[in-house]
Amino acid sequence: MTATLSSTTGTLSNTEVLTGDRSSVFHSWSAQGSFSGLPIAGGQGSTVWDFDGKRYLDFSSQLVFTNLGHGHPKVVAAIQEQAATLATIAPAHANETRGHAARLITERAPEGFNKVFFTNGGADANENAIRMARLVTGRDKVISRYRSYHGNTGASIVATGDWRRIPNEYARGHLHVFGPYLYRSEFWATTEEEECARALHYLERVVQLEGPETIAAILLETIPGTAGIMLPPAGYLAGVREIATRYGIVFILDEVMAGFGRAGQWLALDAYDVVPDLITFAKGVNSGYVPVGGVIISDPIAHAFDERVFPGGLTYSGHPLAAASIVAAQTAMAEEGVVENAAAIGAYQLGPGLRALADRYEAIGEVRGVGVFWAVELVTDQESRTPVDDATMGRLKSELVARGLLPFAVANRLHVVPPAVVTAEEAEEGIAIIDAALAATFC
Amino acid sequence: MTATLSSTTGTLSNTEVLTGDRSSVFHSWSAQGSFSGLPIAGGQGSTVWDFDGKRYLDFSSQLVFTNLGHGHPKVVAAIQEQAATLATIAPAHANETRGHAARLITERAPEGFNKVFFTNGGADANENAIRMARLVTGRDKVISRYRSYHGNTGASIVATGDWRRIPNEYARGHLHVFGPYLYRSEFWATTEEEECARALHYLERVVQLEGPETIAAILLETIPGTAGIMLPPAGYLAGVREIATRYGIVFILDEVMAGFGRAGQWLALDAYDVVPDLITFAKGVNSGYVPVGGVIISDPIAHAFDERVFPGGLTYSGHPLAAASIVAAQTAMAEEGVVENAAAIGAYQLGPGLRALADRYEAIGEVRGVGVFWAVELVTDQESRTPVDDATMGRLKSELVARGLLPFAVANRLHVVPPAVVTAEEAEEGIAIIDAALAATFC
Repeated sequence: MTATLSSTTGTLSNTEVLTGDRSSVFHSWSAQGSFSGLPIAGGQGSTVWDFDGKRYLDFSSQLVFTNLGHGHPKVVAAIQEQAATLATIAPAHANETRGHAARLITERAPEGFNKVFFTNGGADANENAIRMARLVTGRDKVISRYRSYHGNTGASIVATGDWRRIPNEYARGHLHVFGPYLYRSEFWATTEEEECARALHYLERVVQLEGPETIAAILLETIPGTAGIMLPPAGYLAGVREIATRYGIVFILDEVMAGFGRAGQWLALDAYDVVPDLITFAKGVNSGYVPVGGVIISDPIAHAFDERVFPGGLTYSGHPLAAASIVAAQTAMAEEGVVENAAAIGAYQLGPGLRALADRYEAIGEVRGVGVFWAVELVTDQESRTPVDDATMGRLKSELVARGLLPFAVANRLHVVPPAVVTAEEAEEGIAIIDAALAATFC
Repeated sequence: MTATLSSTTGTLSNTEVLTGDRSSVFHSWSAQGSFSGLPIAGGQGSTVWDFDGKRYLDFSSQLVFTNLGHGHPKVVAAIQEQAATLATIAPAHANETRGHAARLITERAPEGFNKVFFTNGGADANENAIRMARLVTGRDKVISRYRSYHGNTGASIVATGDWRRIPNEYARGHLHVFGPYLYRSEFWATTEEEECARALHYLERVVQLEGPETIAAILLETIPGTAGIMLPPAGYLAGVREIATRYGIVFILDEVMAGFGRAGQWLALDAYDVVPDLITFAKGVNSGYVPVGGVIISDPIAHAFDERVFPGGLTYSGHPLAAASIVAAQTAMAEEGVVENAAAIGAYQLGPGLRALADRYEAIGEVRGVGVFWAVELVTDQESRTPVDDATMGRLKSELVARGLLPFAVANRLHVVPPAVVTAEEAEEGIAIIDAALAATFC
């Protein structure tokens, strides 16, 4: 690793890389003038290093996707081999690597899910799941949560002028409901049971008042991710399933962030005794080594398109290089017990460690999570639950980075989301850094 | 190459691969029950082979994107090296490969384009160009052509429940106009000049009657691709530029298919004395070896987001593996004169060859194109210009495949779109196969 470290940091400094990046690259979700991302030269497992040779424990998994960590040798080798054999083909052709990847994915889904539609990422996975729901129901509206994130696309097909636009002219009809989130309940609830029952009641009332015959889909993250890692209370997802079934609505679970190890399960839904109609994925399926996502399709929806043309598609659907990285990542995760590791790290390291911090810091309002998927709510005081301000979060981030930990912070929350391969020692080291950074920020 | 061929065809047959693919993979733009794509085991340059060892001349460039052909050694090596160094990072970090890729791209754009926003493909490139146009103008509507294709996304951000939805809730306000297409004029025109003038007049009347203050963008493929490879008549794009400028509208040119060598230019717009405000790309930029696309941004639009947050982004924006493939592909294209080759092949082989066929076959209504980007309109007779039916196109495709040529056929057209690295001998061989297949179909 020393060799790799020196080979990638020999010629450039952080300042040079940042200058080169800023001058030519336009960045996501940013004001461009103040962009100052940390330059990253390389990584291995749960560690990354910059161009000046400083090492960081990656407790962000970048954007919560490198579940296998950086530089996994089997995934790297699979990419190298597939690049030499056949990097790319059109989706209209057939390919054995693509078929293999699809089978490994459907094996992790509930019974009765036997087909995968591949996309380039999570956004177009959700786009296509919504498209399927609308086409099979003949209905228009999609219900999702206010606290959710499902992707960044929303207009290109409606800009399209040929026949493919016509069945897709529907980026409208979206409505949003509150979901269960007891710590900041919208339902005046005081217990998880009450929060769950009221959230389900409210959802069903919205369905009834909108008109069930107008609602194509209910789209939920199994565990909302960037929105705050709110684990669904017992019975909530099963209750949504019942409502969807009762009113003939397609139930889509978005496993883009929560799936493939993040929640200490192969799919986060495995912990909740629920079977949706469509499952979307990306990120953890191959740890993002090659951009890819997709929809896992239950048999009734898949068969609805046996005779009827599915009016959706994309140039890189089922890309062989992406497929090879999925095959290798899925195989490595199974062989190395990565999902089990994530569950154990959550149960024995991150959960207890973060809860112990909550006992010591008034600024920690709530700790919640599972596996390698934890949120720490930072508040001015535990009584008022008032979120800390952006300046405070900025200080906390700086203290973490200065101590060698890459954080993932959203609004007033620190998300503790290391790779699923993180070791107990690394988890302990990370908790100690968070402790020190909290002390420096709040004491 | 024999070694590669045998190593990838030793264990599986076409039938096995197709069966494995069909059982688990859900395919783009298809009725799934009748999917029977040709299995592809490997490729080199303009040739691909199936699992039974049969070789094909790839006159489709898959989905018109493998401009460098298959298996380009420098691009393969760059992917292999980057995979070993650092396959992926989050967009919020900085990276030298990403900055390098962006600079190579902006160098091919007109003066005053200095930033690139990377996406996963062409659809989300157009999504983000539209987003930028709406945000900088404060206007809603987008005008594009009826005969166009800009991507398959259109709903995910509106399904999003957090703040990122709010500035993006606008998959509406799209309208479509006819563009210049003399062979099937919508303007009762009889000359290119008349078609051009009338198309511009009609566009301006639509702008005036919709209300210029409501129109954010005019979005056009520089040369509409899948819609029929209609080269814009002289003065058309410059005329659109004038209209856009006159009414304060952002002019977006979609170079996803036409760009990076396809039209015998680095960018297809280079032939048309026009400077848009935004340029979208994908496909040819790296021949699709890794999924990637993006927006090349002119300075005024880039600077509009210096202080203001750009409310768009995606997990794999600026993906290092994709960036490495862009750097290698752009470098190889320059070093090997690939763009010049595409121009020469069009001028000396494909153009003359296809026009000679048009002189001999009543079924060829029109031949048009440039570089390695040609369309052949097939008609029942030259007088009526009635498109041939699907069954006839199906026969023609079968005759081409049987003779070892992978075609790209759309509606009543054969698109002749080999890689930009195609040799004169391969072009000649392809024309001869097309000749024989036309004879078998129409004589």
